[in-house]
Amino acid sequence: MQKRISLLGATGSIGIQTLDIIREHPEHFQLVAFSVGKNIEVTRKIIKEFPVQLVSVIAEEDARQLQKEFSHVEFVYGGGGLVQVAAHTNADVLVNAVLGSVGLNPTLEAIKKGITIAIANKETLVTAGHLVMQAAKEYNVPILPVDSEHSALFQAMNGEKNTEINKLIITASGGSFRDRTRDELKNVTVKDALNHPNWSMGSKITIDSATMMNKGLEVIEARVLFDISYDDIEVLLHRESIIHSMVEFQDTSVIAQLGTPDMRVPIQYALSYPDRLSRPQAKRLNLAEIGKLHFEEMDYKRYYALKLAIDAGRAAGTMTTVLNAANEAAVALFLQEKIGFLTIDELIERAMDAHVNISSPDLETILHVDAETRKTVQNMIK
Amino acid sequence: MQKRISLLGATGSIGIQTLDIIREHPEHFQLVAFSVGKNIEVTRKIIKEFPVQLVSVIAEEDARQLQKEFSHVEFVYGGGGLVQVAAHTNADVLVNAVLGSVGLNPTLEAIKKGITIAIANKETLVTAGHLVMQAAKEYNVPILPVDSEHSALFQAMNGEKNTEINKLIITASGGSFRDRTRDELKNVTVKDALNHPNWSMGSKITIDSATMMNKGLEVIEARVLFDISYDDIEVLLHRESIIHSMVEFQDTSVIAQLGTPDMRVPIQYALSYPDRLSRPQAKRLNLAEIGKLHFEEMDYKRYYALKLAIDAGRAAGTMTTVLNAANEAAVALFLQEKIGFLTIDELIERAMDAHVNISSPDLETILHVDAETRKTVQNMIK
Repeated sequence: MQKRISLLGATGSIGIQTLDIIREHPEHFQLVAFSVGKNIEVTRKIIKEFPVQLVSVIAEEDARQLQKEFSHVEFVYGGGGLVQVAAHTNADVLVNAVLGSVGLNPTLEAIKKGITIAIANKETLVTAGHLVMQAAKEYNVPILPVDSEHSALFQAMNGEKNTEINKLIITASGGSFRDRTRDELKNVTVKDALNHPNWSMGSKITIDSATMMNKGLEVIEARVLFDISYDDIEVLLHRESIIHSMVEFQDTSVIAQLGTPDMRVPIQYALSYPDRLSRPQAKRLNLAEIGKLHFEEMDYKRYYALKLAIDAGRAAGTMTTVLNAANEAAVALFLQEKIGFLTIDELIERAMDAHVNISSPDLETILHVDAETRKTVQNMIK
Repeated sequence: MQKRISLLGATGSIGIQTLDIIREHPEHFQLVAFSVGKNIEVTRKIIKEFPVQLVSVIAEEDARQLQKEFSHVEFVYGGGGLVQVAAHTNADVLVNAVLGSVGLNPTLEAIKKGITIAIANKETLVTAGHLVMQAAKEYNVPILPVDSEHSALFQAMNGEKNTEINKLIITASGGSFRDRTRDELKNVTVKDALNHPNWSMGSKITIDSATMMNKGLEVIEARVLFDISYDDIEVLLHRESIIHSMVEFQDTSVIAQLGTPDMRVPIQYALSYPDRLSRPQAKRLNLAEIGKLHFEEMDYKRYYALKLAIDAGRAAGTMTTVLNAANEAAVALFLQEKIGFLTIDELIERAMDAHVNISSPDLETILHVDAETRKTVQNMIK
């Protein structure tokens, strides 16, 4: 059976690799709709390659221009456009690969339409995990992880009982500064930070990986996706990123998923689940060639952002929204060279300290807290 | 539900640990029958601890003596006794933990009675895998692996489709001589060989581990249990024995089972399957403490016995029986200090070269070839 796919965030790292997978398996997948930001040139290419019905862009004028060029495709724009791509198509699976909390509303709308969600947009689960999982339960919609760590956990749980899990072990490469002490991080530059040893990713995620906030968001995401308490989620430093994550069961058996660092594997698994499709051209894991795998205990003082994330996760309510929004704002300030690297953590902590937590927030409250937090962080450096 | 267990080989390493598991979980498991060899003192202890109905020993006079002491238990002996313990009880699961090909007939008889087989007796699968699996299919009886490697493969396949497997990766510690070249093995003593770095096992298995024949038998066993071709079974040197084995799927994902080197984990899994029972007192895996895992390509010249085993496996028919019987005979000669360490491989190869293979052998043929091979090997050193 061919699955129809809609894709939010087609020109980002995950989006591009999702298109690779669809391209590799035309007998299994068909792209029916996608969203992009402002990269109109790439948008034209995608439309020419894939027979899509609906495309969303950010700007109204881009939509108008494209409509003139491609009369057989429908063009929409803005936040409403994202919702249309997510929920108003005949797609079987929505791949949510946008960055930031703009992915939240489209996800909820797609769930209401019974569309399976392949989620790469971690902010959606971090800021509004309870709403997403509630809706998924109500509409009986599977939420499939795309992130390599959550896909690894999901795969390790295949055929297993959730009640027999002891703990989740999420691996962390340590990011671009893993061999530096916290003191040595004071004066690192944007250029230093964007040089990640294992992966080539967008700049926001690369910075999150260097601060370990990326792992913090993943811990919260794991809590939401798998309903495991924070006490039973461990983060383990593993510089090679070969073991993508592990699950320890109550008989002390540990099941791990391993592979070369290729995001197309978890992306494909989310699309093909419960089947696994072949990838004859992909690089296969060769552990003898790699020789050694290293493991180190996580240092929560060194990686303070991870501690902040777990604190926010335990506080729950709107605190994870504050964490995520403050992080997005602070990382943007760092990328604009307005603050130093260690100030990212500092601004997040100040934002969390200043926030009065609201439990079980609705979507409106979350979006309000999100916007307020961004302003708060902006004002901190004025 | 409490499962009734019968146990062949109660005083061996696997047998003792099987009793540990039954002892730890009285609400889940009940020992109803067992066999021992000649260790009558331990037999008395087991009878006093567990409310068994039937016990088999090797010697008739031991059976008579024990009958006088324990009138509420039935005692049997010899090969017929093994079959009674295996097949003539109300057991739900038979743990076959005897050494050598004496385990074959009782296994087949138990299968005919619909008793689930937890198999630790690899010779049964190596010499007569086709008969065992045919019977298991015919009587719809599960064959559950007890060996840590096969249990790892079995666990990695949980919830997965057999048709989506690319290959099996069986890990090997390298045995007690892993840091020596083949030349350096010429003059090793029995005492040297019995000093295994990771495990404390019986002497036959320790020698098999040093020659790598143990891994060779495991490859043949994996072929039989999981119906995977020899081309798709790889052996990987991994000195820490933490990753117990792995399965690579066609999407290049690798699923591994890891744990501390504790045979009670796979034994318990075979008994509790499809559930996992807790082991609160067991040592949990701590990868940060271990620090590094090492992997090396297998060297089939260095570990020549592994090559012989795979050759025998590919030849199939009675050749695996010759391999196993020649190995048992040669290892016995080495333990009696009648031959050198490298002569083990040599005698096995000569026995295989001398044998005219018989395809699809029946039980009688297998037992005949087994006995003949032992004589052949004995005669080689006269």
